[in-house]
Amino acid sequence: MADLARLSINQATTREQYSLAQAITAYSEADVAGISIWRDKLAECGLPEAVRMLGDSNLRVSGLCRGGSFPAIDAAGRQTSLDDNRAAIDEAAALGADCLVLVAGGLPEGSKDLAAAREMIRDGIGAMLPHARANKVPLAIEPLHPMYAADRCAINTLSQALDLCDELGAGVGVAVDVYHLWWDPDLQAQIDRAGSRVVAYHVCDWLVPTTDLLLDRGMMGDGVIDIQQISGWVENTGYNGLIEVEIFSAHNWWKRPGAEVIRVCRERFQEKV
Amino acid sequence: MADLARLSINQATTREQYSLAQAITAYSEADVAGISIWRDKLAECGLPEAVRMLGDSNLRVSGLCRGGSFPAIDAAGRQTSLDDNRAAIDEAAALGADCLVLVAGGLPEGSKDLAAAREMIRDGIGAMLPHARANKVPLAIEPLHPMYAADRCAINTLSQALDLCDELGAGVGVAVDVYHLWWDPDLQAQIDRAGSRVVAYHVCDWLVPTTDLLLDRGMMGDGVIDIQQISGWVENTGYNGLIEVEIFSAHNWWKRPGAEVIRVCRERFQEKV
Repeated sequence: MADLARLSINQATTREQYSLAQAITAYSEADVAGISIWRDKLAECGLPEAVRMLGDSNLRVSGLCRGGSFPAIDAAGRQTSLDDNRAAIDEAAALGADCLVLVAGGLPEGSKDLAAAREMIRDGIGAMLPHARANKVPLAIEPLHPMYAADRCAINTLSQALDLCDELGAGVGVAVDVYHLWWDPDLQAQIDRAGSRVVAYHVCDWLVPTTDLLLDRGMMGDGVIDIQQISGWVENTGYNGLIEVEIFSAHNWWKRPGAEVIRVCRERFQEKV
Repeated sequence: MADLARLSINQATTREQYSLAQAITAYSEADVAGISIWRDKLAECGLPEAVRMLGDSNLRVSGLCRGGSFPAIDAAGRQTSLDDNRAAIDEAAALGADCLVLVAGGLPEGSKDLAAAREMIRDGIGAMLPHARANKVPLAIEPLHPMYAADRCAINTLSQALDLCDELGAGVGVAVDVYHLWWDPDLQAQIDRAGSRVVAYHVCDWLVPTTDLLLDRGMMGDGVIDIQQISGWVENTGYNGLIEVEIFSAHNWWKRPGAEVIRVCRERFQEKV
């Protein structure tokens, strides 16, 4: 149902197959509209070369992955994180990315204080926000599934992310990812609440069974998420940006030829999103 | 900090080591105050023998695990579930269990309709409630971690469980399990809201990393949950019942001698709960 003109592929979906240069070439040749870029892959490629290649392609950059990781055990650690986040903003601006995705970070080593981690997240985003605004890079807080609360991201519901947006003001929105949010009984209401603050929309599927907490995401249609229903809720906010396929799949999609993964992404995007 | 007089061990914690008869004997000899019983183990033992052994012991039964699994693809499936839930109530009554724990069930085979599954859960509990009330068996809706929404339980937050309690009325409460709920930014407020409807309190810990979605729970103190904080919130509701240790641990605690597991449960209960 989704229009292919809105298809972006997050390069993590072909992480094991392609360098950034190879992904730009392969996605472009397959007429994919956008790409989401990871900073480790960007560093390998070099920012100038990536900017040059993107300029020669028709690919839009739906997002840069990722800023965040704000909580740290001490002020020096938090400062290191802020410096890195400012560098990420500079990169996102150079790439013309639609947003910088923030995976906020979990508990600092040795801590059990989730409330304190959440305060560090708020303060960290607040501290980087002026630089993001000055560079016209929208920040996308991505609430991650509660199973990542300890070690990756202590922002675990869309409601919580929007409370942060309310507090922080212009320049901060949310990334809605069906994988992280599909279970939430309050999801429709919170997407409505988000309105124009939806700055990214990510799709994949929840497999049954799921055999790994991190690397066993499914292709759209292979799991149990009613993706079209959630897409409808997102559409109702007026969101008309790219829709990004992001699949971490160590035992399936990462083992297939990249061209096959792209082909199936295209098919399922039209049928299932 | 917790008083050993309130320690119950869920027999799943020694599932691989003990039959029900062996667990009753071992827990009693270790001066554990309570046991939570699983129906598959009860069936092996036989209800009359279990009742006789419990009568000869000082063990209280903090819960029977479990009722639930309400969603089904058709009316016949839902009726089968209701019949089974009524049998579970009869067993809980015979055992004098403090509650029947409900793990509500996830999506029926082939369905992606989470809202419909949640309606079936509400209707299922409503249908069994008169039998529970007549037998004076409190029902404990246990919200399960969102990672189980698809295949085990579509009730995933305490808020959602309490909404069901509000709708269904007397005889239905909640089981608060730190493993399922610790990540919820709204947890303190929802425990306050629960008040006297907290009918069970379960503890274990969230390990980092967690290597299995189901069978990698940690012993209290080995993970990142601030259990004492949550215990304080539960205490504030006036809950003064047994506190149950429930650990599914295929690769660690299930491989150790039962006596060692019980000993460590006792130690950590005093230090960490």
